[in-house]
Amino acid sequence: MSSPEELARRSTEVMWRDDAASRMLGMSVLSVAPGEATVEMAVRADMINGWQLCHGGLVAALADSAFAVACNSRGTMTVAAGFDVTLLESAHLGDTLVAVARERALRGRSGVYDVTVTRTSDGAVIAEFRGRSRSTGKPIAG
Amino acid sequence: MSSPEELARRSTEVMWRDDAASRMLGMSVLSVAPGEATVEMAVRADMINGWQLCHGGLVAALADSAFAVACNSRGTMTVAAGFDVTLLESAHLGDTLVAVARERALRGRSGVYDVTVTRTSDGAVIAEFRGRSRSTGKPIAG
Amino acid sequence: MSSPEELARRSTEVMWRDDAASRMLGMSVLSVAPGEATVEMAVRADMINGWQLCHGGLVAALADSAFAVACNSRGTMTVAAGFDVTLLESAHLGDTLVAVARERALRGRSGVYDVTVTRTSDGAVIAEFRGRSRSTGKPIAG
Amino acid sequence: MSSPEELARRSTEVMWRDDAASRMLGMSVLSVAPGEATVEMAVRADMINGWQLCHGGLVAALADSAFAVACNSRGTMTVAAGFDVTLLESAHLGDTLVAVARERALRGRSGVYDVTVTRTSDGAVIAEFRGRSRSTGKPIAG
Repeated sequence: MSSPEELARRSTEVMWRDDAASRMLGMSVLSVAPGEATVEMAVRADMINGWQLCHGGLVAALADSAFAVACNSRGTMTVAAGFDVTLLESAHLGDTLVAVARERALRGRSGVYDVTVTRTSDGAVIAEFRGRSRSTGKPIAG
Repeated sequence: MSSPEELARRSTEVMWRDDAASRMLGMSVLSVAPGEATVEMAVRADMINGWQLCHGGLVAALADSAFAVACNSRGTMTVAAGFDVTLLESAHLGDTLVAVARERALRGRSGVYDVTVTRTSDGAVIAEFRGRSRSTGKPIAG
Repeated sequence: MSSPEELARRSTEVMWRDDAASRMLGMSVLSVAPGEATVEMAVRADMINGWQLCHGGLVAALADSAFAVACNSRGTMTVAAGFDVTLLESAHLGDTLVAVARERALRGRSGVYDVTVTRTSDGAVIAEFRGRSRSTGKPIAG
Repeated sequence: MSSPEELARRSTEVMWRDDAASRMLGMSVLSVAPGEATVEMAVRADMINGWQLCHGGLVAALADSAFAVACNSRGTMTVAAGFDVTLLESAHLGDTLVAVARERALRGRSGVYDVTVTRTSDGAVIAEFRGRSRSTGKPIAG
């Protein structure tokens, strides 16, 4: 029998190993625990939009990856049903962004997760994201 | 004096020319009109997540790019304040996705835009996105 | 066999007859059709908040009632899983508000509905609401 | 000079005194502190919808009132720009609901607040609400 912490680590390994999208965007999982995850991404030149800001969709993609790690951390395959994001501050080329995801509520197969994206250089909150998850009920195979 | 249609086209050219993120994700603007835009993206192998589905954050990034073209189409530099997305159906490797953005309401510097993302092969609705925009008030220089 | 229009009318009658909350708030269903509904509410003195504006939660309640009529109009008992509302303009004592709800997408048991709340005196858009529905699968008994 | 706690109390008094809507719905402010508020509401017979559940819009109205108290607690007149709510569990006649609001992020005139609505009898989470605030910049007159 594995502990909740071990289950969180193994579930993340299985999911993250095949997550080509998060790898393409240069993301790293800094930590994972039951219902929690921290994921980092550096803003590269190919992530900048027409107004010289980090594309808001890529800030959301970072938050969405942290949300995915957190909501799969209990060992059951879970997908996103949707999310809401408030963009509070722009990120720029060279910024390193960290997304911290935390489970907020679970009810049946539905879950609510909060993700805060901050800039590491000054701690400014870039975005507040709230994800809605839906469990498939299937265990994540070790 | 340019017509609203010309202004939409020129504003898109200025913004899109420097949008490295949308280019990196292989997006194309199929059409633009005052308050409206259609943007296409093919789901590549490097857009797939750990469950072999298109990463939800990249579906949102496509919708966000269509939203950006639509909310800048009236010639005033405008940014996203946030958005909500409901993911109704998964997209897969090889799917071509089309995002159609339409202005829903404008009030002072705030705007609300709807974006529907569909799969071209069967017309299935992949996601419904609602963007909240905030105008900076600055004209987009020709 | 009843037509979709008859089914929409009968489903609304069954649901609305027992909707004490919508009645308490003085709402009237102006029209219903498959996937669509229009509901009206006058802003009374007991709907005003501390800043002398109509309470935003009651604007949302009006939109939510129109959403409920629309998402139950196809004859299957359906509940709200959640909603997002953008408040664009304040409503005041004496305003009459009209909420028009329209089905935007259905997928399995999930649905997405848009509701626009306008002020009848000048047509100003007060709020844009997006509802997420979940069908129970049970027919609404005639 | 008043302390932040005194300012929170006085701001709430000024705002709540004239909040006819929250009073009509039987709400009480249980506590307020800088950036935080707790508001209670009992589900009455006239708050029930056609499916014999507490109307979702009224659950949202409770959360919205707690959000209003919290976002005005720093002494500056602040209004709701919008909110998102996920309804996790139905409330019924006779339930007492408590909404706890907490400031999550402030940036310029924009703020993000989380509100959790629970049922007091068993602690079940009824709804998770996220509010987006906009400060007017005007002090709340004592």
